[in-house]
Amino acid sequence: MTVTREKHPFYSFCNKTLEEIRSQGRYRQFTPLARNASQYPIYQLSKEGLQPSPEEIVVWSANDYLGMGIEPAVIEAATQALKQYGAGAGGTRNIAGTNPLHGQLEAELASLHHKEAGLLFVSGYVSNQASLMTILNSMPGWISFSDRQNHASMIAGLKGAKKANCVVFEHNDLNDLEAKLAAASPEAPKLIAFESVYSMDGDISDIKAICALARKYGALTYLDEVHAVGLYGQHGGGVSEREGVADEVDIIEGTLAKGFGAHGGYVTASREIIDYLRSAASGFIFTTSLPPAIVAAALQSVRMVKKDHWRREKLFERVETFREKLEQAGVPYMKTESHIVPIMIGDAERCKEISRRLLSEFGLYATPINYPTVPRGSERLRLTPNPFHTDEMMDDMVKALKTLFSDVKIQSNSEKVIENV
Amino acid sequence: MTVTREKHPFYSFCNKTLEEIRSQGRYRQFTPLARNASQYPIYQLSKEGLQPSPEEIVVWSANDYLGMGIEPAVIEAATQALKQYGAGAGGTRNIAGTNPLHGQLEAELASLHHKEAGLLFVSGYVSNQASLMTILNSMPGWISFSDRQNHASMIAGLKGAKKANCVVFEHNDLNDLEAKLAAASPEAPKLIAFESVYSMDGDISDIKAICALARKYGALTYLDEVHAVGLYGQHGGGVSEREGVADEVDIIEGTLAKGFGAHGGYVTASREIIDYLRSAASGFIFTTSLPPAIVAAALQSVRMVKKDHWRREKLFERVETFREKLEQAGVPYMKTESHIVPIMIGDAERCKEISRRLLSEFGLYATPINYPTVPRGSERLRLTPNPFHTDEMMDDMVKALKTLFSDVKIQSNSEKVIENV
Repeated sequence: MTVTREKHPFYSFCNKTLEEIRSQGRYRQFTPLARNASQYPIYQLSKEGLQPSPEEIVVWSANDYLGMGIEPAVIEAATQALKQYGAGAGGTRNIAGTNPLHGQLEAELASLHHKEAGLLFVSGYVSNQASLMTILNSMPGWISFSDRQNHASMIAGLKGAKKANCVVFEHNDLNDLEAKLAAASPEAPKLIAFESVYSMDGDISDIKAICALARKYGALTYLDEVHAVGLYGQHGGGVSEREGVADEVDIIEGTLAKGFGAHGGYVTASREIIDYLRSAASGFIFTTSLPPAIVAAALQSVRMVKKDHWRREKLFERVETFREKLEQAGVPYMKTESHIVPIMIGDAERCKEISRRLLSEFGLYATPINYPTVPRGSERLRLTPNPFHTDEMMDDMVKALKTLFSDVKIQSNSEKVIENV
Repeated sequence: MTVTREKHPFYSFCNKTLEEIRSQGRYRQFTPLARNASQYPIYQLSKEGLQPSPEEIVVWSANDYLGMGIEPAVIEAATQALKQYGAGAGGTRNIAGTNPLHGQLEAELASLHHKEAGLLFVSGYVSNQASLMTILNSMPGWISFSDRQNHASMIAGLKGAKKANCVVFEHNDLNDLEAKLAAASPEAPKLIAFESVYSMDGDISDIKAICALARKYGALTYLDEVHAVGLYGQHGGGVSEREGVADEVDIIEGTLAKGFGAHGGYVTASREIIDYLRSAASGFIFTTSLPPAIVAAALQSVRMVKKDHWRREKLFERVETFREKLEQAGVPYMKTESHIVPIMIGDAERCKEISRRLLSEFGLYATPINYPTVPRGSERLRLTPNPFHTDEMMDDMVKALKTLFSDVKIQSNSEKVIENV
């Protein structure tokens, strides 16, 4: 025990805050789940002792949307790279940590998004935070325009840039965005930061219209395609590819950890922007590069996902089938334009309780999404059907939800919230 | 090409800045090097676009200090986890991304540093940035005291905390630290942020004395052991273990990507501090967790490094032997208290030139370390001998440096700088 523990106010602050979090029913408990690569989306639930137990759970919340993380060719690519190059990269990109695979993956991602260059980061969070902060600290007077529902990692970059002003526009509201662009100084360098698929509500932005406003008011566009890459467009280039507007966006950011099933994040843009970020972004420069085995997995995955349009077709067929089953059973869900199926609950404690009962009574795992990930009052289960969810698994989930929604207290609350959304 | 490219000032800003960087001789070029896991520290040079050079390169700059990244048992652990669990984690810790291995590694790291709990981050950079920012934004009035040579990731956290004041004290200067602690309001919550081994100059802080000042002035202590974990102490717990003062430090931060040869970062501390960070740190919450295969590699590595003191003995024997060889040959180097052997050059262009000639004429790789990693005028090669550098490899490097230092222009400059350090 450290000497300051009784004396320093931070210890009591932590204890007090954690008490509050507990009393609000939003104390975070992680469920240890060991994925079974040969039976995705089946995981083994780990009990108290942290050892995998034989209890099999069907997971409905993973972000490995296409199941590329369990694709044998992806695992094989990583295995070969492990054997050939070892476990870690052993240094920053500048200090012996640039494996030839890093450059190959950056070129592949640039091509995916119709850009001249790409840059890898250790995570999608870091790619947003470091890129946005570096851009907005580059010249004096930047004004950023940020969608109200942008992800925490974008906000960290936008608000973290001390030299810049950040103007928040209402979610997907083009009129509000235009009013705020028009009100800003015409001379100020401007940036519009937004996402394609918003992961919690599953809605999709109008990229073409936002780019038109950007042209009209001379703003740079920064698009987060994290929940879309791999899934949308003829080659998995995201919603910007599907809509044929990738060329109109200045910077496209994505992740390797969701649709591509691996790990890490990236940005793609013109040569000079990428070269500037490579030279100036602290979060890129001063960190060990991604392990070659992870880069090998991602490279294999991106190449396969580009070619195999059937993976996307299969995903959306599964999502549609699941929605139909929910519909038929009368289980309330949010109809979204994307692959995400939110089941609104609207109360942190109830949300955790339904999730807990799904797990303990039905062997189904659906993460409770509580504040601060979503606003208080919009707590939900967030379901992400993937190509490996069978009809039988879907029937099990629908039946379980129907059973739990027959609990009047839960049902009335969720209906109230759905009306308000 | 995007529509705004000709119009938006950021594009011309990037081009102009890159021109300046080039004219200062500090344009960043990464050398693609493929590590050979069965022959570490031998790498294959990726020749594309580079000048002719021997195909096999002996690398002298990697941060895989003990070579744990090529340890067969570490690679095997990662391979098994890949096969069992797939490539990526598939979600945040809260969204199905907590594999049982994550908890096991956190417990192992907590035990390594004599702490109650541990928390994994996607990198050491993020562990510093996210933890420090979260702590310093927690209560009003925090004052942080930061060593002038703290790593960029700590600075990102310390300066990124908008609610806190950051006071910089002179590097390893206990008098200056005490004067600044004494001058601060006694009521303000305080934090001292420092490192054990400073990676560029290779010097070591007096942890015990800093903790004594922390007690006297009621400050929390945050210690970065990134360049020490695995290497110092009877079990690789870092300098704080070696000095028997781990218990006196409130928060010990480390990396899995250097001495442990894998990837990722972590903090260890009391249960309530870790639980608070787990619940409040945006950079922890909103990001996909480390891939199970990487966690498996790190877990295997930490367990082996804890037991195998001979790895540390071998490392320091190799470092000592290399220093003796440099000494005998009359090659100037910085005598450090650590395992790091800096060779000062003092000019960005010359530093790059020596590095380039080491590579093209001698098949040796030593990264040029230029601004912003080190201050201008203290550009250097930073050599990190490891247990796998043979006597013959050392002789080759010493001979090459001797040859390059006989270039008068380079020699006079480096000597001048060494006198100034």
